[in-house]
Amino acid sequence: MDIIEKLTEIFKEFPGIGERQAKRFVYFLMSRTGAYNENLSSLILDLKKEVAQCKECFRFFIIENNKKTQICEICANPHVDSSVLMVVEKDSDLESMKKSKVYHGKYFILGGLVPVVEKNTKSRVRIDELKKKISTEARPQGLKEIILAFSISPQGEHTDQYAREQLKDVTEKFNIKISSLGKGLSTGTELEYSDNDTLKNALKNRQ
Amino acid sequence: MDIIEKLTEIFKEFPGIGERQAKRFVYFLMSRTGAYNENLSSLILDLKKEVAQCKECFRFFIIENNKKTQICEICANPHVDSSVLMVVEKDSDLESMKKSKVYHGKYFILGGLVPVVEKNTKSRVRIDELKKKISTEARPQGLKEIILAFSISPQGEHTDQYAREQLKDVTEKFNIKISSLGKGLSTGTELEYSDNDTLKNALKNRQ
Amino acid sequence: MDIIEKLTEIFKEFPGIGERQAKRFVYFLMSRTGAYNENLSSLILDLKKEVAQCKECFRFFIIENNKKTQICEICANPHVDSSVLMVVEKDSDLESMKKSKVYHGKYFILGGLVPVVEKNTKSRVRIDELKKKISTEARPQGLKEIILAFSISPQGEHTDQYAREQLKDVTEKFNIKISSLGKGLSTGTELEYSDNDTLKNALKNRQ
Amino acid sequence: MDIIEKLTEIFKEFPGIGERQAKRFVYFLMSRTGAYNENLSSLILDLKKEVAQCKECFRFFIIENNKKTQICEICANPHVDSSVLMVVEKDSDLESMKKSKVYHGKYFILGGLVPVVEKNTKSRVRIDELKKKISTEARPQGLKEIILAFSISPQGEHTDQYAREQLKDVTEKFNIKISSLGKGLSTGTELEYSDNDTLKNALKNRQ
Repeated sequence: MDIIEKLTEIFKEFPGIGERQAKRFVYFLMSRTGAYNENLSSLILDLKKEVAQCKECFRFFIIENNKKTQICEICANPHVDSSVLMVVEKDSDLESMKKSKVYHGKYFILGGLVPVVEKNTKSRVRIDELKKKISTEARPQGLKEIILAFSISPQGEHTDQYAREQLKDVTEKFNIKISSLGKGLSTGTELEYSDNDTLKNALKNRQ
Repeated sequence: MDIIEKLTEIFKEFPGIGERQAKRFVYFLMSRTGAYNENLSSLILDLKKEVAQCKECFRFFIIENNKKTQICEICANPHVDSSVLMVVEKDSDLESMKKSKVYHGKYFILGGLVPVVEKNTKSRVRIDELKKKISTEARPQGLKEIILAFSISPQGEHTDQYAREQLKDVTEKFNIKISSLGKGLSTGTELEYSDNDTLKNALKNRQ
Repeated sequence: MDIIEKLTEIFKEFPGIGERQAKRFVYFLMSRTGAYNENLSSLILDLKKEVAQCKECFRFFIIENNKKTQICEICANPHVDSSVLMVVEKDSDLESMKKSKVYHGKYFILGGLVPVVEKNTKSRVRIDELKKKISTEARPQGLKEIILAFSISPQGEHTDQYAREQLKDVTEKFNIKISSLGKGLSTGTELEYSDNDTLKNALKNRQ
Repeated sequence: MDIIEKLTEIFKEFPGIGERQAKRFVYFLMSRTGAYNENLSSLILDLKKEVAQCKECFRFFIIENNKKTQICEICANPHVDSSVLMVVEKDSDLESMKKSKVYHGKYFILGGLVPVVEKNTKSRVRIDELKKKISTEARPQGLKEIILAFSISPQGEHTDQYAREQLKDVTEKFNIKISSLGKGLSTGTELEYSDNDTLKNALKNRQ
């Protein structure tokens, strides 16, 4: 494999990128100035150095002022509501929720969804880390509710169910409520074109 | 205007049909057999004769066995739960809800949505008919809840608000609850790409 | 089947219309005034009466002023260039070509394309009528060229080939040229995303 | 700007990538192993070192075996037909044409298209380098034809016209023909939906 093919293979792993666009990226980089490529190259190399994964929520965050902190600014913020913990699949879900400014509690990144057919799920998602986190947060911090916040898809539904089963013992022990994001009509939904599940949820959750 | 142009104009009013497809419909009809066109022509003519608009819910329904009934089979069905009344915009919304088999109560077709900027709304939607219907259904039939079931769009939201204001007096008088379909994540919704309103509703309606 | 289902079935045969849109058409017609439906119904019935199929080119055309003509206005027009005859699949192709105002000769509607795997093709397309037409036009009218104008698809290519074989004898007898529409880059084509056949044709037909 | 924002800005310049996907790329890289990112980083850095721009055709190519060659393998290949020179906009157009295996001559990368309204075009495209190339290739190599191969768009058409004007003198001097890729129906084109220009070209280029 020559360097064009190697780079094409790597870009193909980028989210949403197919062979053709991966190759366009390579030709794009060939036509750039040396300075542009050097800048991109060194930023990619620095990313891991300037970014740390939070020991509390497993979120990636930028290390500020060379501080040797291992806790992200949300987990370190004393004003964040520590009575609720929202469990999301990935960083970009957290960013989306954070941006909406409707939630003011803590987060936990599960690191993936649980496939519907899967034997060894523990290796994939951070369910053990989540249990430990709940135990730690329960007593002193007064954690009262876990909010499961997964996408509405077969995998998302399965992960919701899986998490409820796995967290049953620890949440019962500390008397913590488990809830899931509300389902129903989302912005732009037209009744006429809604699927049965959405109509069922919309009816059940009417208010 | 020749007949091709006249028919094109009419087909252009069909939902979702532009000039080009309207014209294709005309050429399609020209190439059909005479029998096909005669059949279509007479079915269109018969449609109004074989279909009646229900005096109770304003839904269109097929008149069975030449009965002179003015009430559709849902309104006439004694097993339908008459304690709830779902208000929808149009017939196809009702059909969609009916098909999902999750709702077993009565319906009312409002006949449209209330535009956000609009002076004379009464002429457009059947709000007076709805008030009258509620008064009638309230005492003997034991109507207990009105479910507003509009699409999640500026017009849908506006109509929800408008209906709540207009129905305030009659529902308070008869102690009838007003609810709206639940909002939140609908099937296929990905957290990462959700708008703020949907996230807010999903969080508020968590359970 | 009730009338709603019957009409839905018919609308489903309209070009490009699926079950859901077919049903929307029926609900649309139910909500229209009686006058609208009567007008549509009678126009559909009149279509076949006011439209005739040209005996020369098999095109559908509007019969003007109750004249008992069997020849369309293109075939009847003495200023149309009768030295060229363009063979197209269907009426809408002819309309598109006519609208572009780049061609000033005669037309012939073949009435379909020849499927790649098909035993009894003659029954489907008007190849015998075309042969007869060519014989008739050859001597007195001075027909010099047949232009095959089919879409660039497997069926279109197959029909082009089929027509060339079938017309070989009659065109050789009368010394008539057979040509096909030029292939190459069409408006909006980007070189980067072109298929091999288009590139081959574009290169071959460079000028 | 933190490193996430900086990288997002750079990825936004990649062809076809918007803000949202650019950010997803950054989160994707954060979640990768250090080895993956180091590999990507060093490949991007090496790209310019392992790739050279051909002095003859301005195409990017991989330097094989550390040879200090400045000529790509197409330009260096004695079996390539040097009597034709195809002028394309960019590397990916050349790759597409090369892959189709229908052309066996030389290439020249113009480096862009000429905008319809533009004062200083020379700085953008390699028209001077092309003229020089033609002069050099004309006598000894026996260059006989220049094929202009631009996309069918206002800019592509304008560049075709611009190149013809600019190359007039040098091609007349050496008696070299200028042609452009053939226009007409491309694969998948349906007559019914074709624009006037495509129909005009298809008719003109019939054969």
